[in-house]
Amino acid sequence: MKPNVEIALRLLHRIQFTDDALAIANPVLRDSFESTTAGPVRVLPFVDEGVLQAFPDFSARLQGYADAHGDRMTLATDVRPIVAGEACKNDWQHVEQVLSAINHHDIDRQSYILAVGGGAVLDCVGFAASIAHRGIRLIRMPSTTLAQGDAGIGVKNGVNAYGKKNFLGTFAVPHAVINDISLLAGLSSRQWRSGFSESVKVALLKDAALFDRIAADAEAIAAMSFERGVPIIERSAELHVKHIAEGGDPFELRNARPLDFGHWSAHRLETMSDYTLPHGEAVAIGIALDTAYARQVDLLGEHDAKRIFECLAKLGFELANPLLEDVESLWVGLKEFREHLGGQLTLTLPTAIGRTVDVHEIDREHLERAIKQLTADK
Amino acid sequence: MKPNVEIALRLLHRIQFTDDALAIANPVLRDSFESTTAGPVRVLPFVDEGVLQAFPDFSARLQGYADAHGDRMTLATDVRPIVAGEACKNDWQHVEQVLSAINHHDIDRQSYILAVGGGAVLDCVGFAASIAHRGIRLIRMPSTTLAQGDAGIGVKNGVNAYGKKNFLGTFAVPHAVINDISLLAGLSSRQWRSGFSESVKVALLKDAALFDRIAADAEAIAAMSFERGVPIIERSAELHVKHIAEGGDPFELRNARPLDFGHWSAHRLETMSDYTLPHGEAVAIGIALDTAYARQVDLLGEHDAKRIFECLAKLGFELANPLLEDVESLWVGLKEFREHLGGQLTLTLPTAIGRTVDVHEIDREHLERAIKQLTADK
Ligand SMILES: NC(=O)c1ccc[n+]([C@@H]2O[C@H](COP(=O)([O-])OP(=O)(O)OC[C@H]3O[C@@H](n4cnc5c(N)ncnc54)[C@H](O)[C@@H]3O)[C@@H](O)[C@H]2O)c1
Ligand SMILES: NC(=O)c1ccc[n+]([C@@H]2O[C@H](COP(=O)([O-])OP(=O)(O)OC[C@H]3O[C@@H](n4cnc5c(N)ncnc54)[C@H](O)[C@@H]3O)[C@@H](O)[C@H]2O)c1
Ligand SMILES: [Zn+2]
Ligand SMILES: [Zn+2]
Repeated sequence: MKPNVEIALRLLHRIQFTDDALAIANPVLRDSFESTTAGPVRVLPFVDEGVLQAFPDFSARLQGYADAHGDRMTLATDVRPIVAGEACKNDWQHVEQVLSAINHHDIDRQSYILAVGGGAVLDCVGFAASIAHRGIRLIRMPSTTLAQGDAGIGVKNGVNAYGKKNFLGTFAVPHAVINDISLLAGLSSRQWRSGFSESVKVALLKDAALFDRIAADAEAIAAMSFERGVPIIERSAELHVKHIAEGGDPFELRNARPLDFGHWSAHRLETMSDYTLPHGEAVAIGIALDTAYARQVDLLGEHDAKRIFECLAKLGFELANPLLEDVESLWVGLKEFREHLGGQLTLTLPTAIGRTVDVHEIDREHLERAIKQLTADK
Repeated sequence: MKPNVEIALRLLHRIQFTDDALAIANPVLRDSFESTTAGPVRVLPFVDEGVLQAFPDFSARLQGYADAHGDRMTLATDVRPIVAGEACKNDWQHVEQVLSAINHHDIDRQSYILAVGGGAVLDCVGFAASIAHRGIRLIRMPSTTLAQGDAGIGVKNGVNAYGKKNFLGTFAVPHAVINDISLLAGLSSRQWRSGFSESVKVALLKDAALFDRIAADAEAIAAMSFERGVPIIERSAELHVKHIAEGGDPFELRNARPLDFGHWSAHRLETMSDYTLPHGEAVAIGIALDTAYARQVDLLGEHDAKRIFECLAKLGFELANPLLEDVESLWVGLKEFREHLGGQLTLTLPTAIGRTVDVHEIDREHLERAIKQLTADK
């Protein structure tokens, strides 16, 4: 037989921004369920506890929406709350909770799981959905700036195991992503701000004009201006998805991962902080560290480096985190990142605003100097 | 932003038949590891206990092979035995065993997992490999007729949970599949025979000439003739892979699953027997049942139905299994199969040798008559 056969897949990644998705007149959610002749589809809803706290009527409104659109959808159960934040990724029992509901309510491959929440809840519920019956259709409704601009529109999920971030996970294209901007009103200003580090990341990688906009509006964004902030999130989402679809490696089989710029140290800092440091804040520090390093090894000019530091600071990020001083532990993180990437280290570093280069090693001495620079800045 | 983006993936499915893969002069295994500039790749080997019993020198030969090809590969540990048969799919601890070895030995996305064994071990190890670091490269070395012609060359894996077969699993294209026919010499005649039910299945679906060959050689095959049997397995593998690659739905997002012909009852009978009934034997019964049903509802002619029964019987399959008499329980299996497919039932039934049709319901009365016919035959 012919030894090599090509398996080609074309998966539709459906992403939409909308306002107030649970308003009965808003068709976005109902339209995301494929219409079948067999009647309404069954939907198993999981919602971030933080969302339920911020919007106490969320469950009732979802039920009302489902009732009003009973021709298209029916809720298989009441809303299942999911423990908020990294906690849901740190304990297998939360994956189990989702799997057991899927089993108990006979959710099949033509039913849907609806996951509403921050990146952590989407990762946990999404992972469970992706391994039950070899993949159940997932509708994500990201509820943080970080999730709407980045985590929720990616094609990955994951939970932590053996003390390693995202040790378990899959690549899985969700059935649809609905970015309901009205959910962002529930965020504290710290949570709101958090997602803009990923916007800075993608701007530095791909779009100098976006960086200029963020830099110009940084203070308004930090003050929770929806008018200034939401378009930035939308543009971040667009650039992110474009990279996944057109970057030639959606399931990251190759080594370079530009979207992980700033993330090697971010992931490590999150672990070191026992996940008290939110992902978005860790990414801000990670970007600052890689910027300082790029400056140290003369890949990046002084002026651009300064602009990056200033923009992050104006967004409200604290860059001089004391955890940075544990260089040994950060160094372990570099090793782990290499492993997670797969053997050969490839890191993306900025050479200018909107331009980057891939490097394959990090020099410890220059890294220590970069750290000193960041922590001394305070 | 544009709401829909297409994610295109092209995955190479590398499948090869070879004889005595561990002979040092045989390059197939070494060549399946991508050569890197970074030196030899790290390989974590898991082997079916049944293989280790049948070939007590297997581990030493694998080590010898790795030593001789040390420029290309290095074993990260001694061979890890995996509990044989369905047992490894029935208990999460076996998945955990693989995950924990991946963690412990720092296996990354550029390392490899080598899985040697029957379909069950490949399913269990393959599932773990597919969720660690969002997917580690897997080399499968199927060691049964069923795994070489069918299970090991598919793009699925899975383990059982909540009493449901393959409740957990993923679609994942392995890095390479090496069908070493010398391994088949370790099989009992019952195990050897078992895989030919899948050959009958694929022949009935796609290749009348293959069915003729199986029917003509059925007695020789049952007597473990490699000369007659191995080409049948090779052809089955080829047809199976061709279907995956060219059938337009490699990850089974649609409803019809022709390769699951005969499987709705097979899966149920396996569960009912507490997995004492091997998959291949259950499939033989499943094919016979669907054949009898197709005859009852007049989709299939008497002559063809007879040929199918005779061929299965000559291969040594026992079709009048007493479990069939529990119609109620079989009926539950139909419901579960519908669920696993996703809502709408689609079953493939034979209309002639090499030709099939999709149906969307099963009539209980005719099913009972079909069962009577099978169990009365004895
Ligand atoms: N899969 C990916 O591609 C990907 C990419 C980036 C990040 N991530 C993951 O995402 C996680 C971080 O996500 P995050 O920044 O969204 O934080 P998060 O999910 O940890 O949520 C932060 C907090 O906000 C609360 N919250 C969420 N939505 C709310 C709302 N609308 N109103 C009030 N409170 C709300 C949550 O309950 C939680 O307490 C990390 O686990 C990270 O690893 C995944
Ligand atoms: N993933 C898929 O697409 C797919 C398709 C079909 C079947 N399957 C699964 O495959 C499993 C059945 O596989 P199987 O029929 O290979 O049986 P099996 O894996 O259960 O193995 C049967 C027995 O043969 C022994 N054995 C294996 N190789 C041997 C060798 N070379 N010498 C001596 N003994 C050996 C095993 O130790 C075991 O005791 C089922 O779990 C079924 O669900 C999966
Ligand atoms: Zn991130
Ligand atoms: Zn089968």
